[in-house]
Amino acid sequence: MRKILVLGAGKSSYHLISYLLQNASSQNWQITVADASLELATSKTNNHPSAKAVSLDIRNEDERNSYISTHDIIVSLLPPALHYLAALSCLSNNKNLVTASYVSPEMHTLHNDAQNKGLIFLNECGLDPGIDHMSAMKIIHDLQSQGAEITSFKSYTGGLISPESNNNPWGYKFTWNPKNVILAGQGTATYTQNHQTKFIPYHRLFSQTEKINIEGTGEFEGYANRNSNTYLETYNLQKTATLLRGTLRYPGYCSAWNLFVHIGITDDNYQVNNLSSLTYHDWITSYFPDSDKPLLEVLQEKFQHLNLSTQDWNRIQWTGILDKTPIPLKNGTPADILLNLLQSKWKMQPGDLDLVVMQHSFEYTQNGKKHFHTSSLSVKGENETATAMSKTVGLPLAIATKLILNENIKSKGVVIPVLPEIYNPVLDELSQLGITFHS
Amino acid sequence: MRKILVLGAGKSSYHLISYLLQNASSQNWQITVADASLELATSKTNNHPSAKAVSLDIRNEDERNSYISTHDIIVSLLPPALHYLAALSCLSNNKNLVTASYVSPEMHTLHNDAQNKGLIFLNECGLDPGIDHMSAMKIIHDLQSQGAEITSFKSYTGGLISPESNNNPWGYKFTWNPKNVILAGQGTATYTQNHQTKFIPYHRLFSQTEKINIEGTGEFEGYANRNSNTYLETYNLQKTATLLRGTLRYPGYCSAWNLFVHIGITDDNYQVNNLSSLTYHDWITSYFPDSDKPLLEVLQEKFQHLNLSTQDWNRIQWTGILDKTPIPLKNGTPADILLNLLQSKWKMQPGDLDLVVMQHSFEYTQNGKKHFHTSSLSVKGENETATAMSKTVGLPLAIATKLILNENIKSKGVVIPVLPEIYNPVLDELSQLGITFHS
Repeated sequence: MRKILVLGAGKSSYHLISYLLQNASSQNWQITVADASLELATSKTNNHPSAKAVSLDIRNEDERNSYISTHDIIVSLLPPALHYLAALSCLSNNKNLVTASYVSPEMHTLHNDAQNKGLIFLNECGLDPGIDHMSAMKIIHDLQSQGAEITSFKSYTGGLISPESNNNPWGYKFTWNPKNVILAGQGTATYTQNHQTKFIPYHRLFSQTEKINIEGTGEFEGYANRNSNTYLETYNLQKTATLLRGTLRYPGYCSAWNLFVHIGITDDNYQVNNLSSLTYHDWITSYFPDSDKPLLEVLQEKFQHLNLSTQDWNRIQWTGILDKTPIPLKNGTPADILLNLLQSKWKMQPGDLDLVVMQHSFEYTQNGKKHFHTSSLSVKGENETATAMSKTVGLPLAIATKLILNENIKSKGVVIPVLPEIYNPVLDELSQLGITFHS
Repeated sequence: MRKILVLGAGKSSYHLISYLLQNASSQNWQITVADASLELATSKTNNHPSAKAVSLDIRNEDERNSYISTHDIIVSLLPPALHYLAALSCLSNNKNLVTASYVSPEMHTLHNDAQNKGLIFLNECGLDPGIDHMSAMKIIHDLQSQGAEITSFKSYTGGLISPESNNNPWGYKFTWNPKNVILAGQGTATYTQNHQTKFIPYHRLFSQTEKINIEGTGEFEGYANRNSNTYLETYNLQKTATLLRGTLRYPGYCSAWNLFVHIGITDDNYQVNNLSSLTYHDWITSYFPDSDKPLLEVLQEKFQHLNLSTQDWNRIQWTGILDKTPIPLKNGTPADILLNLLQSKWKMQPGDLDLVVMQHSFEYTQNGKKHFHTSSLSVKGENETATAMSKTVGLPLAIATKLILNENIKSKGVVIPVLPEIYNPVLDELSQLGITFHS
């Protein structure tokens, strides 16, 4: 009997927990799902004989240690900032850990300790980061072993709505953490083009997009994501001229969203007070000096250089952000207000299907010839709970958990899935489960 | 014998220490000037019989307490983040404290403790904040006592270069903390116009300027500074329709600086690495996708909407930021690189005189009639050390120190100089020393 502790039973846990429950009997697993909300945890274990749901306050060290010490492996779906707490307890109790989040600087500091104790803390093992790393590394290693020199690598991922459920002008509904969608791209994006580091400040990010066609799925627009340059080393692409990782949206989203960025209403760093006395129209007006002109005209004049199309202006107006409707909040940051408005507009409805898309594009030279290679993934959700997002985040986590429990992964320390011993079996099983890349 | 401890002997300490030394004998003062650099401290005490210079590591609690406990009042010219350490030691040793910095949230939490111990921690007692508060409050209290209703109050301050020393196209040289000049305005400015809160995000701050004429001194441009709305209460102007505090520059500075903001090179949040292999031209190029066009043309096309004049483009080119000159740094944030470049370009030269300007503009109604009132200050430096900046920051601090030592100020707790018992005697003495407002 091996005991698995899942920390967090939120949106993206559905497929992870389903996989664990389905394999519990054949693998001789006992699964504990722990969440601050016992109700949420219970809804996921669903009276399965090999599972139990418990309520856990992860910030309570004694409570946390009592669960972690009595399990063999910990899968953390906690908010990123809380993984470190779980990792500290895993270290003191000699337990392995799996997460779908970026390795934080704090997590990174635990590498030697984990390695010395013979533990693996496997991070970035979901979709993005996760499947993107695994599928890219497989191709990169294959090409490099054939003597190819990779000159350009671009990788784009999107968590979107499936075309049949796409019934709003943005082509967007929330299929993962909505606040992260509002804050996406803040800071400065970094990538490499022709051996030169390039920067894109936030206020130009959504106008510097690239058209991406995924055959059989559709047309998308991609914008650069965070610091791609850290992957020059991670992906063993130090000599590659061009490297860019990005995020996909349906065409039109970026140019319309860019207006919100330029008005200034995606900011999460200050509070707007006394909101209950304001309409959305008042609030947007507060970003401009007083004027006799209608607000829409002020915006159109002020942001003429953003070249918004008629459809973009329709997108803006469709959100209701220019309406004289009261804001249903007392106070909040601009990002909070925008999130609150969009959460009702961009909500998945019963029957809605989501869509996960990913595309890697390579340019490489082999035997003196230039080649192009693309590899694309397109996964559709089953319904509004069994989403493609939950599937593509949860299944790699679940498969990696199985591989670690069965001692099929030898790596120790703080690790991400860029090693063949991890990505090969995970990608193989994902493929059997219908998550397959096409070239 | 009363003992005064001055923490910090940097640029703005000249006039403060001079005043204290000049009055040491008549006031029976012993002055200690403490700085991390003994040399800097010694250069300011200048072998004066009533003064001594010492080396002090303010972060060393024992060292800090040993000095603070043996003096009667502490004047802190430390970087703002360090005032709190000084304040904690003042609290535990029952000493009064004077600073020229904004009351930080941490400092604010000490109000009750200081009050209960009968101590005064007087902050915001320099130029801006400082003289601006005092001179504004005197007018506001005068008008309100005469039954006037103030409907608009705008207050602008600038630390600039005097016209006779103004020999560069920006009309700017560094006369105070240069890094703060680079970072000025980051975040979102907030003010009140016609009873409505208004926001200006950083990327629109330098294009939303107001022309300000100071009679006898010249024409300036003002941009909004931080959160003016906190002063609605501080200045007892809760019913005032319009309140704005701002910063003054010579005309042209803001529109040219706006280009740096829009390129993205005032950012202090990420490091640019391997700078030693780059020229300024390479670095600026890194903010744009590759192009066959000359960099200047790329900038002119990309930022056409900023409406830069030929003079603005001359300002940009004059800095050397488009030159193919190597960057003399190994790495740094964009703000660091820009600072390093401008520090040589905007350096005060021997004989250069600086200029401090301030203007308050009021609109008020009295007996049913609308009135306008402006009150302006213009102070010129004596030389590149005895600057107007040092004078207008240092003298209010010095005078307030004297008033506290002589028990002429009764207020206790964390205080700013908006009370008549503080601003009246300070403004009176400033006026005797040549710092006089004109209506």
